[in-house]
Parts: sequence; C-alpha cells; structure tokens
Amino acid sequence: MKPKNAFYAQSGGVTAVINASAAGVIETARKNKKRIGKVYAGRDGIIGALSEDLIDTSKEPASAIARLKTTPGGAFGSCRYKLKGIDENRAHYERLIEVFRAHDIGYFFYNGGNDSADTAWKVSQVGEKLGYPLVCVGIPKTVDNDLAITDNCPGFGSVAKYVATSIREAGFDVASMSKTSTRVFVMEVMGRHAGWITAACVLARVREVVDRDGYCAIAVSEGLRNREGKFLSETGLKDAFGHSQLGGCGEIIARLVKDRLKYKYHWALADYLQRAARHIASKVDVEQSYKLGAEAVKLAIAGRNAVMPVIERVSNKPYRWRIGVARLADVANKEKMMPRDYITEDGFHITAKCRAYISPLIQGEAPPPYRNGLPDYVKLKNASVPKKLPEFKV
Amino acid sequence: MKPKNAFYAQSGGVTAVINASAAGVIETARKNKKRIGKVYAGRDGIIGALSEDLIDTSKEPASAIARLKTTPGGAFGSCRYKLKGIDENRAHYERLIEVFRAHDIGYFFYNGGNDSADTAWKVSQVGEKLGYPLVCVGIPKTVDNDLAITDNCPGFGSVAKYVATSIREAGFDVASMSKTSTRVFVMEVMGRHAGWITAACVLARVREVVDRDGYCAIAVSEGLRNREGKFLSETGLKDAFGHSQLGGCGEIIARLVKDRLKYKYHWALADYLQRAARHIASKVDVEQSYKLGAEAVKLAIAGRNAVMPVIERVSNKPYRWRIGVARLADVANKEKMMPRDYITEDGFHITAKCRAYISPLIQGEAPPPYRNGLPDYVKLKNASVPKKLPEFKV
Repeated sequence: MKPKNAFYAQSGGVTAVINASAAGVIETARKNKKRIGKVYAGRDGIIGALSEDLIDTSKEPASAIARLKTTPGGAFGSCRYKLKGIDENRAHYERLIEVFRAHDIGYFFYNGGNDSADTAWKVSQVGEKLGYPLVCVGIPKTVDNDLAITDNCPGFGSVAKYVATSIREAGFDVASMSKTSTRVFVMEVMGRHAGWITAACVLARVREVVDRDGYCAIAVSEGLRNREGKFLSETGLKDAFGHSQLGGCGEIIARLVKDRLKYKYHWALADYLQRAARHIASKVDVEQSYKLGAEAVKLAIAGRNAVMPVIERVSNKPYRWRIGVARLADVANKEKMMPRDYITEDGFHITAKCRAYISPLIQGEAPPPYRNGLPDYVKLKNASVPKKLPEFKV
Repeated sequence: MKPKNAFYAQSGGVTAVINASAAGVIETARKNKKRIGKVYAGRDGIIGALSEDLIDTSKEPASAIARLKTTPGGAFGSCRYKLKGIDENRAHYERLIEVFRAHDIGYFFYNGGNDSADTAWKVSQVGEKLGYPLVCVGIPKTVDNDLAITDNCPGFGSVAKYVATSIREAGFDVASMSKTSTRVFVMEVMGRHAGWITAACVLARVREVVDRDGYCAIAVSEGLRNREGKFLSETGLKDAFGHSQLGGCGEIIARLVKDRLKYKYHWALADYLQRAARHIASKVDVEQSYKLGAEAVKLAIAGRNAVMPVIERVSNKPYRWRIGVARLADVANKEKMMPRDYITEDGFHITAKCRAYISPLIQGEAPPPYRNGLPDYVKLKNASVPKKLPEFKV
C-alpha cells in the first residue's frame, strides 16, 4: 500500500528556529519512506492548504533541507489566519479535506502557537466528523513562551539569548557614555502579555545593576500596562510639548525618564530583529526545535491523533530535557503567564527561580555558516505541486 | 633615564572594537618598557586628564587587557567634550600640561572621530606653546566612517556587518509574513550625515530585492533629510558639539508607508545595539582596530608628533591593507561624505563600486568567548592613580 503524504504548515509569527522544526519533520519523514510519502508544505501556512497552494518539499535536496536548521524566518511562508469552529465555517473544513483527499494526505503537521494549536485541534476533529482518516500533530513554536503544558517553547530561548546579549552590550556602551552623555538606555522587546522576554534581559543586567553607577539599561515589554491595566502604548500619554505619544512603550518610558528625571536617553526597538536573529540563536533552542519536528513525525507514524510533542524538563543542573506528549485540546487557546514567584516583589527583577528556569534555554551557540561576511541562509526552490481542484476563495 | 608615561583616552561615541585599539596601545607599550613607562587611561576620556582622574592600566593583568579585544563599549569611559581653541581656553590646556607634568606623561594617545582628531591636534600644539615636550598621536574610531584620509574607520566594519546581517534576517522574517500580515519592514540605522551605514544594508538586500514579491525591507539613515535639506527627525536637541540629536525617521518612513500605501509595517530602531554588537563584529575591523592602536604607540616611540595612523587599501580582491600615517591637521574637523558614484541614480541602492569598497570590511567572524550562554565581556578594575594636584573644575 502506498504510504500517505504529509502536510506541514508554519503558522503565526516566525522565529529564528521554526525552520529547524521543519527540517526535523522533513528529514524524519524521509527516513520513514515506507510510512510517509511526500511532505507537502503549505505556501503561507494553512492558507496554502485552503487554496491548494502546496509546495513539494521532495524537490529540495537533502543539503537544502539541512540548511533550514541555520536559517531564520518561515521557509514556506506563514500566516496569521485562524479557522473558525467547524459549525461556523463548515465550508473551510470541507475544503481542507477535499485538498487532503486530492493529494492523498494522511498526516497534518501544524507548527505554531496557541491559536495554531487550536486550529490543529479543530482539524483533528474534522477527520471523524467528515469521515476522512487524518492524523493531526501540533508542533510548538512561539517566542512568547506562553504555551500551556510544554516546559518552554521553541523560539523563546533564541530571543532570550538575543535580548540578554543586546542589553548586556548596550549596557557596556551606555556605561562608557554616562559621564557627559546618555545615562539611560531603554530597549523595547516583544513578548505580548506574558512578559517572558523582558524578564530574560535581567539575566544580563544583574552584574550591571550591581556595578551600576550613574547609568541604567532597561528592558521594557511591548505589553507593559499601567496600574489600571491599560497597555501603556494605548494610554494616549502626551510628551513635554503636549504632543500625543505615537511610539511604543519603549519610547514612552524613555521620554518619561527624560521629562521626569532630565536624563539624556537612547532607546532601541528590536522588533523583528530579535526573533529573526538566527546568527545568535541558542543551541539548546535549535536542538529542541529540530527534535520536536522529528518527534511529531514519529507520533504521526504511531497514529497518535490530536497531540503535540512538548518539552519536559528533567533537571536544571545539569540541564536535561526530554520529549513528552500533550493533547492538543489541553494546549489550544491557553496562555501560560509567567509565575508570580519568577518576579521580585518590586516587579523590576527576576528571581533566582526564574533565572534557573531561563538560563538553560540560552545555553550554547549554534552559528550559521557565513559567506562573504554574512550569514549564508538558504532560500528553497519551493516548487508548486500541480493543482487538481477548482479554485477556492479563502 | 626613566621612560615617560603615556596617556590614553577614548572619545565620543564608543564602538564594538574601540577596546581592541586600547589593547593594541597597552600591549605594545608593555612590549616597549624601555621607551614607555606606564599607560594611564583617562577616566571618561579627556575629562579624566583635566580632572586628574587617571586609571593605572598597569594594575590590569595581561589576560584582562587581552580580553579588551572581545569587549564592546569604552573600557575606561568616554565623553563628548570638545576642547576650545588654545587662545579661547588657555586654562584648560595649562591644566592638561600640569597634569601630564605631574605624572611624567610624555605621550598622548587620543582615540576618536573628527572632533577628537581636532582635540588631539590642538593638544599637539600645546607642547610647543607651553614649552612642554609631548608626542601626540590620534587613533581613528567612528562607526560613521567619515574621517578624512583613512580608507575606512575602525568601528564601521562591525556596524556594517551587524546591520547587513540584521536586515537580511528581518528580510527573511517579513518575507514569511507578507501574505496576511506585515509587508514592509523599516530599520533605522546610525551614520549621521554620511550615510555609510545605511548603504551597507543594501549588501544584504540585493538578493531580497531581486527575489522580491510582495514585501520589502528598508534601511533608513537617522540622517535622512527632506527635499529642503532639513533632517526628517530634528528634535531640536543638540549635543555637546552642537550637533542636532537625530532619531525617529525610521518610524516616520514606516508611517508614511502605511498612510500612503496602506501596508502593514513593522519597524526597528537598532540604536546602540548596532555599535555595541561585539558578538557579531567583523574580524577585519577588530584586526584593524588593534593594529591602529599598536602602530600609534610605534609612531609615538619614533617621536612622530601630531599624526594619526590610518588604513590604506592596497587591493580589493584579495583585500589587502596596510598602515599609513596622516597629519592630525589634515584629519581634524573634516567630514568625508560617501562619494556620489557609490549611490545609484535613484538614490536607493549602492553601486558595484560601493559594494567593492564595503564588502572587505565586514569579512570574517571574531566571536567573543561565551559563558553561560552570554558573551563573556571583561570589566577592568580601573584602579585610580593617586592625585597629586589641587582640584580643577572641568
């Protein structure tokens, strides 16, 4: 019997290591050719499945797939697109099944965050409801580190390493300049509501804080809120000239420092740089991302539907971890917040407990190859699978 | 006869590699103990000389000095402080000589940009005018790459490598997201008037521009001006040298893109991160910085007053360079602009000529050591030299 093909898609904001998970999926599928046929990737995520815009990854040589382990971004394109419930939007689910049936797809791998776990879970229910056999496996990914059950999320460790390195480096810079010039440096980082990334900065700040004399380097989360719980970037604060604040909260904090304390400041907005910075990715993060992709395939081959491989921490010192399995239903749409005891009473530092949690995740360097002084990232051919169905309006 | 001591100071904005020049100075002086006594560093730059706040670098072990080669920022502190002409401010020059005499300093090394070359040149005139023998040697440094005579400036190559890497990485990110989310990514970079740093981004953009389909990653200089020649982002603030404070045009461009073209955007402000990013410094840049410091000491020992070692390019392919010598008077207060033929007619790309110029400067990686997942940068003891003179109000 010819083995079923697999569909793999990347979802939501991409990371420095999501392609390592893709490599894990594709290389493991290639090692199991008797159980899995071709791996088709969705062009621009789940939209590629709905629009029958499939990429035939079998056209890529092994060398190109291997290079995904050192290439940031989403190699097949990602999307922010959330499928509604099957009762609200039956047409989309029927279309998915139609496409999967047309291309003999029996495995569905969805690589993303909370929303994506929800989508993967919904798709996993489709098989039964519409009478099509399909094994759905989620693969965790989010720099926000806010997925339930898994100890940590692939993508976070590398952002943590980037921001901790950056705030340390900027700290060395502003320390030099503080006598006559900049006294405060503010860096705005990602992390939405959960605050994980901001906390990671403190890892690098500890020594600077101790030695601190006349300067300060601060990391603020884009999700910073005021006492009333409103996002700082939505509060309509006005600057000293009465102009309303347009910028993110990094700039708001920096201007507050200047207006209130009269200190000269500099501020940085790392934005996509932090989650794309494959050049300074965490080795642990790369390894976990790859392993989660590989394990997702093994779960699928074992016929485990509606699950997601997760990271389980075995010990902190030495850091040891293993792969566990969660039910997608338990992961979908949940947001894991940073535990209160990871943050000091005053709210400005992380605790030893938090440090013990984050530190292992940034260990090790896994630099990409360089060519002519720049990281040599791969661009895949991304050859299309010929369409078999009429067009469908997504 | 006991050899004269040396004074070394860092000036202006610091870089990822200015400490490599410091290492070059100190290590070379240590190898020439018969000619140069101790190396005293100015705490916070030239202010340290005026206030007799000297750091005794002889208290640092060789291992700590060696680690300066992999540590960003200014290890002894820097300052933005410009000495006026000797006729306008005789007291400051007399004080400098008084401090140098008190500490038996016969060599003055000043590591900085245009303004610093001017200061070093003025100090070089002091010896004769005030009858104190002093050999003054400048050491070039500026991420703006705008010093006259030298082929390139230490600090620039590493920023170029950082911004080119960053825009490449962000390009991979936004390419993944462009179907349903961000279409335009804007990164604001440093470089003041000269535009060197912005141009470097194009190195990494070339392939993306060719492949481009539905997304765009743009680098804009903080020094961007409108048609009337006004800085896009004039804040009205001026620094100690009377330069306008720049910053914010990345956001202005991003908002224009959204308002006019209706594209969703993300923007980043690299700010100090770019010039502090020792973790991705250019190997060529580190080597040149070190060599310039070492050569400055050799020039001083040879009694060459009022000069600065510079980089001379011998060939592009293979890239070869050597050290030349410029007169401080020819470097002081000049600003080298990017040649017109380095920029395309439309003003949005660099030419092959510019690429051939910049490309060698970002070659090679020289990563710092890592400890616990983070760059292991050195903090010196910076022990003070006991004061011998009454206080002086700077």
